[in-house]
Amino acid sequence: MAEKSENNTILVGKKNVMSYVLAVVTLLNKGEKEVVIMSRGRAIGKAVDIAEITRNRFMPEVKVSDIKIGTEEMTTKEGNKTNVSTIEITLKK
Amino acid sequence: MAEKSENNTILVGKKNVMSYVLAVVTLLNKGEKEVVIMSRGRAIGKAVDIAEITRNRFMPEVKVSDIKIGTEEMTTKEGNKTNVSTIEITLKK
Repeated sequence: MAEKSENNTILVGKKNVMSYVLAVVTLLNKGEKEVVIMSRGRAIGKAVDIAEITRNRFMPEVKVSDIKIGTEEMTTKEGNKTNVSTIEITLKK
Repeated sequence: MAEKSENNTILVGKKNVMSYVLAVVTLLNKGEKEVVIMSRGRAIGKAVDIAEITRNRFMPEVKVSDIKIGTEEMTTKEGNKTNVSTIEITLKK
């Protein structure tokens, strides 16, 4: 199980992939042993890209130690409830 | 490790999510013990949706037994090489 904290979790949003890769690489280089990449909905593919680019281009010693998928209920602007898929990818140094 | 064959692998493309959910449910109901959902690039989020909808709405007894991510090299129409992320989600009955 990944130990989650504010310090080692990257929440993927609308920035470009390389911004998040840089954040992951920085955390691992600062001494974090694990980083959790969290994402949902349309940004799920981006989370996979971030993990893969980190490993393939920057830190080949890093391994994917865990991947979890799930579902969250969200409320739309109109007040309707809808489900959105989530992913959590844990990278371990 | 999932035992992969043509028979129990769903390759996710451009059809809508529910078409693939139906395919997964049909395979599991026909006696397959495991189904592998494979996807790449922009369809990665769709693979997660398929797995989650199968479990949450249709087959709560099914578990995610394995998730793998990877990178494939592809050649574009213009002849350039580019990398694309991949995901494989194994559902087990």
